[in-house]
Order: sequence, then C-alpha cells, then structure tokens
Amino acid sequence: MTDIKRVIDLILQELTAAGAVAPAHCTCHGLLFDCCPSQIGGVLAAGASRLGLHAAGGGAGAVAALIDHTLLKPDATAADIERLCAEASEFSFATVCINPTWVALAARLLRTTQVGVCSVVGFPLGATTPDVKQYETRRVIFDGAREVDMVINVGALKSADYRLVTADIEGVTAACRSAGVVSKVIIEASLLTDAEKVTASTLTKAAGADFVKTSTGFGPGGATVADVALMRRVVGEDIGVKAAGGVRDLEQLQAMVAAGASRVGASAGVRIVKESRGELPDGMKSAGY
Amino acid sequence: MTDIKRVIDLILQELTAAGAVAPAHCTCHGLLFDCCPSQIGGVLAAGASRLGLHAAGGGAGAVAALIDHTLLKPDATAADIERLCAEASEFSFATVCINPTWVALAARLLRTTQVGVCSVVGFPLGATTPDVKQYETRRVIFDGAREVDMVINVGALKSADYRLVTADIEGVTAACRSAGVVSKVIIEASLLTDAEKVTASTLTKAAGADFVKTSTGFGPGGATVADVALMRRVVGEDIGVKAAGGVRDLEQLQAMVAAGASRVGASAGVRIVKESRGELPDGMKSAGY
Repeated sequence: MTDIKRVIDLILQELTAAGAVAPAHCTCHGLLFDCCPSQIGGVLAAGASRLGLHAAGGGAGAVAALIDHTLLKPDATAADIERLCAEASEFSFATVCINPTWVALAARLLRTTQVGVCSVVGFPLGATTPDVKQYETRRVIFDGAREVDMVINVGALKSADYRLVTADIEGVTAACRSAGVVSKVIIEASLLTDAEKVTASTLTKAAGADFVKTSTGFGPGGATVADVALMRRVVGEDIGVKAAGGVRDLEQLQAMVAAGASRVGASAGVRIVKESRGELPDGMKSAGY
Repeated sequence: MTDIKRVIDLILQELTAAGAVAPAHCTCHGLLFDCCPSQIGGVLAAGASRLGLHAAGGGAGAVAALIDHTLLKPDATAADIERLCAEASEFSFATVCINPTWVALAARLLRTTQVGVCSVVGFPLGATTPDVKQYETRRVIFDGAREVDMVINVGALKSADYRLVTADIEGVTAACRSAGVVSKVIIEASLLTDAEKVTASTLTKAAGADFVKTSTGFGPGGATVADVALMRRVVGEDIGVKAAGGVRDLEQLQAMVAAGASRVGASAGVRIVKESRGELPDGMKSAGY
C-alpha cells in the first residue's frame, strides 16, 4: 500500500500546487475560487455542455435523465415506493434510488420501463465489513438492482487504513462488474477534509468504480459545488460524479452539473423537472418547498 | 400471520383499556400518567429495586454494569475505539457498543477483561433484507461480538407486513441463539405510533430476542421514559428493555431504569458513573456537557 500512499501524496502535491486543496477562496461565496458560480467560466461551460444543459434551462428530458429519484427514509412504506416508481416512470428519471428491502418490489413495478433500480449498500454509515457489503451488493443485484451506491469505510480512511478502504470498495465494484451493474462510491464528503476527499476519490477510481458520489443525505452535510468540482478534477473524465444531498431545485442541479456532476440524487426530482419545463409558478421557484 | 395479527389486536385492546395506548397524560410532564416521575410509585420502585438502584444514587458498579459504552459515529477512528475500550475496562461497563468494522479490534483489546463487545446490525435504517442482517450477525459474532443490536424493518412494519418483520428479527435472533450471543431488537420508537411500538415489542418477544431496545440514536428522537414503560409492559419481565439515545446523566439513567430499562446505551457512560460516585462538581451535574 506504500505505492498507493505515494500516488496519493503526489496527487495531493499537484492539486495543492494547482490551488485545489489549499485553495484560494472567492470572496463572494467562500468557495474554492474556480468553483464559484460568479467566477467560473471554463468549468461551467465544460460541465453544462457535457450534458447538453444551459445555464438558463435545459431540456426536461435531459434533466430527468440526470436524476436518481430518491427515497431512503427508513419509514418509507410499500405505498411510498409504488408512488416513487410511478413518478419515475412518468418523468423518465434515470433510476429510483431506494433501500435494499424495496428492490424486488421496485424492479417488478419498473420492469416494462426504461427506469433502472438503484440501491444502497453499507448505508448510510459505511462502518460494516467488506464481506457484508459484498454480500448485500449481490443480494440487491439478485433482487433486480442495476446500480449500487456503496458507502466507504470513513473510519478506516481517517485511520489511514487505505488497504481496508480499498478492499471494501473493490469487493462491491467487483460484484457489480461481474453482473454488468453500475457501481457508485459514496465518500460522505461532509465528514472529510479536502485531502481525505482527494484520497477517497483516488481510491474509488483505482478500484474501478463507475461513479464517485458526494454524500448519503444522512450526514452532517450534502453535496457542495466545491466538492463536486474537486472530485471531478481528481477522477478526470473517465468516471462519473454523482452529487447527492440537498439538491432541491433546478438552479442547484445546474450548479452541480456545471461543477462536473454527471448524475444527481434528489428526492425533489418531480419539482426539478417541472421547473425545467416552466411548470412551476414563479413564486415557488425559490421557495425551497 | 392472521394469528399474530389477532394476538396483537388483543394486546392492543387490552392496553388501550388499561390506558397505555390511548393514554391519560399527566399535566406536569405530558407523559403517560403512570410513567410520570412525579406520579409513579409502584413502577419506579419495581424498576429501581430490580437493579439495586435508589432514586438518590446507586452503587457505581451497579450503574456501570447497566451501560453499553457506545460509539457508533461513522468517522470514529481506531484511536477512538482504543480509548473507548480502555474506558470500558477501567469502569467495568457491560459492553462497548460499536460498528461491525471495529469488532475484531475491540474483541482483541478486551479479551482479558469482563467487558463484552456489542455490535449493531442493519444499522441504523434497518431497511435491508433479512438474509443480509443474518449474514452481518454471523460476521460480527465471528469477529468476537457477544451481543448484537439489530434494527427492525420499520417500513415493513408500517406497511403491516408482519411476516417480513418477524422473519427479519428471527434471522438475527436464531443466529445469535445458536452462538450463545445476546440479541437486542431496536424498534426506533420515535418513528412509530404507540400501536406500532406495541406490535414491534410483541413481535420481538415472540421471535425469542433477549432485549427490546428503544432507539438507534440516529433517528428523530431517543429513548423516552414513556416508551420504556410501554415496552416493559408489553414484554413483561421475561426479556430485557434497553433504553438508548439521549441518556446523558445519572438522573436520566435512573428515570429509564425506574420505567423498566435493564440496560442503557450511552456515549456519556464515564460521566454518568463519575456522577454516581459523586466525583462531578455540582455545577456540572445538570450542565448537560
């Protein structure tokens, strides 16, 4: 693992030199300077054009295809899941993102649609063992999941046990790869330092995951534009970045995409798509309802 | 499952008639009348005497033996776990209660002590499948856990899928029983109606668990005196009741025990034991630090 440590140190040095890790913050937002919505040029344009979105709007279909329609509350009922699946089918979201106990039901409800089923593993604490996460991965795939969002072992990362962090991610990504299932790795950025975010993103890419994802939505904070930009810079263009947690309207979604997100997890997907179609009254656009 | 449903309905009717489910609340605390600290006589005395505690204090050893010394934060490090185990050994807590990833380490650190290792399963959402919870149970037992706290499938309970709720609990209790390990079932009371608390406690007892437990500490609320009293009344004296979430000082611990708790989960165990020894300055007793 000395090699991995050295690679991470090199990446950190490079990013620090480029101003990403010990960054200059903009004075308007306190964000990394080149992630600030008022400052960014190239990053914004690159992210928006990658997904066919424009700062002022974007096709409703393109917006819906970005969204994992998400319901992860522990007290969600079968009726709630049925409603979520009906909405996902109506609006053509990328997936429904649900807890493992509901995967079989959702897969049945969505089998004649283009909507995938995404489930979560080791969620939301990430503090179980690699074999348990791999077992849970196989279970949700067996039940019909086509995408799996796993949570890293945050405590192991903070204890600098990169061997365990890597084995943990690889157990899940290997199970996904062998079944042709998309894997996403949640780093729970709000618990991490910038250096730890870089390390986690690097190990995610090295483990062959398909996406790195910001947050569970159960931690102390959700997705930030700065985190998405940092994660995108670390993983490059080869894999996806999913922004999740607290994305509640079209403007926030566009900011995430501009910063580099290629997928967004949200419980407010219906509202966001309606907003992109101009179907919400003006007063509701910024009400955060 | 019709039989189970009928039994639950009968219990509900009986408790409702006794005023426990649609209860008269005391005016002083808004608690169930017979759980109110100012009103209770018999319940308090029974709870306190069961555990050799007195309203005014209680031996520090008896207090420590009640406590699962708890650290379940996802970003806890190896150093944090080492500190927790050292404290548990010094103060002779019943167990350390930790996430699965740390069980092997804690079991190694505590192997020459009387302190057990308690871990959590399906934690904290409880929204995974029964086989995943059973697999995780076997894994933590393999790693050295002597007690297992599992979370019920709250969504299934709220969808009235008692067959699934029961299968889920039984998968864990069976794995525990065959290894001589104590099983506790977390009902996450703050998400439930009183009727659902009764149902969950009934199914827990029917599945042969050793304890019913109030809360994960990650939900919208922790243990309440009213919930502990209700759960104790439903399960009788045959199994334990564990109060967890928000118990921060000796007075709160004593109130839980008086209401019927036979174990308390707390991260403030050191403070509570010191308070029971009279080692905290007066000013700190109610400061909630």
